[in-house]
Amino acid sequence: MTDHTPQRPGHFALVVFPQYEPLDAFGPTEILHGLGHPMVNPDSAKVHLSIIGPSLEPVSSGPAEGDPSPHKSRVAQSIVPTHTFDNPPKDIDVLIVPGGFGAGPKALWGGGWEPAGVERVVQFLRDQYPGLKHLLTVCNGAGLAARAGILDGHKATTNKQLWQVITTTGPKTHWVANARWVVADNGKLWTSSGVSSGTDAMLALVDYTWGKNAQGVLFGDVLKEGMEWNRVYDSTADPFAVSNKCTDVEPQAA
Amino acid sequence: MTDHTPQRPGHFALVVFPQYEPLDAFGPTEILHGLGHPMVNPDSAKVHLSIIGPSLEPVSSGPAEGDPSPHKSRVAQSIVPTHTFDNPPKDIDVLIVPGGFGAGPKALWGGGWEPAGVERVVQFLRDQYPGLKHLLTVCNGAGLAARAGILDGHKATTNKQLWQVITTTGPKTHWVANARWVVADNGKLWTSSGVSSGTDAMLALVDYTWGKNAQGVLFGDVLKEGMEWNRVYDSTADPFAVSNKCTDVEPQAA
Repeated sequence: MTDHTPQRPGHFALVVFPQYEPLDAFGPTEILHGLGHPMVNPDSAKVHLSIIGPSLEPVSSGPAEGDPSPHKSRVAQSIVPTHTFDNPPKDIDVLIVPGGFGAGPKALWGGGWEPAGVERVVQFLRDQYPGLKHLLTVCNGAGLAARAGILDGHKATTNKQLWQVITTTGPKTHWVANARWVVADNGKLWTSSGVSSGTDAMLALVDYTWGKNAQGVLFGDVLKEGMEWNRVYDSTADPFAVSNKCTDVEPQAA
Repeated sequence: MTDHTPQRPGHFALVVFPQYEPLDAFGPTEILHGLGHPMVNPDSAKVHLSIIGPSLEPVSSGPAEGDPSPHKSRVAQSIVPTHTFDNPPKDIDVLIVPGGFGAGPKALWGGGWEPAGVERVVQFLRDQYPGLKHLLTVCNGAGLAARAGILDGHKATTNKQLWQVITTTGPKTHWVANARWVVADNGKLWTSSGVSSGTDAMLALVDYTWGKNAQGVLFGDVLKEGMEWNRVYDSTADPFAVSNKCTDVEPQAA
């Protein structure tokens, strides 16, 4: 990526669905909150976030209706989409896909159940990927991208506590264990590990796409100072792969 | 705090107001999301989050109506309160106060303006503090607590980039520079530095109040694994105090 010339994306979009994991979503978007500040970025007016959900009604991170699994937190935040999957904004540059209980797959949590809306999210990702500049998945959001076929033939990573289950969703993917995040498909495809790893991946993506400011400082470094974020620069520095004893899962032969 | 016996709080509440900083709020509450999971905490049914705002309408982190300052991000998320300041839930154990542009004070950002609702938030904190088990402020949320008089006579910390301005809101406070977070008032008062520091403070607060699980592992350590959070254990390990050249601000003589 050393010969890479940054192409500064302006239109970011976040996918939300019932039982999304809040920090998966709000870590990466906090970075955009900063990138959209005039005091941080003279070109901030270019930065825009769309939030895309099943409908324009608030979407809760709490238990979904009909879910029989007891493994659900009662702690929830509801956020408000700006667009729907059926009527999304045009010209999305970067699409952010969180994980969470609502991302499934069915084999997770022992419930054998997932919200009926998951297939719609998978289809949305399948439809959008060709037109994107970048896709960033966080946590088991990688499983949604895998089910859309987007990870086929690529390297990727995902949550380390859910490693055994999520990696089954992408049998044609080389799942990299020792990775806080993985970049593939010529810089288009970014997958991160669990929850807060998405924030480090997003800082790296901002550096990759926005590069340095007029003072020669990487935008990601300006932003991590404002967030007081103890940033991880090395994408292979992943103590959680070690603590969870994860090893690579090679793609299966066709 | 070594002789301390954990008292496990169940009712957490988050204050929100226009132009709150999202990660100030969603970092600490992500920890509650985990603490509320039955697979993490056998006593999870005790854990509950209320979200308290000016009204029950969605509250946006984006620019507030009437704000003349150009220093605003257009990137925003709206979340939905469960209660209002005028009709709050009873028996809150732990109150979480984020910062953000909407927390002011007027001297910030050069605009000399702050949302009209800030005084209502300050009054709410003043009214609630006596009945709480713990108050946790994040970022310039400390300025709201200072204006409520809660920080008078105590040690506290706040955002390091906003150090010079926020410390003026609490002239009777000893502001500690080299601190990711500070505990005062016999363990009741927790103030954290900028944005993501609130998440480390919350993990420490969960350890302080919930202690260890049946396997002898601190709840904070169980939760940081699920979040893949590179946890800071040492409250004095603050590279951002160094990078921003912050020094202690002693309380002024009466």
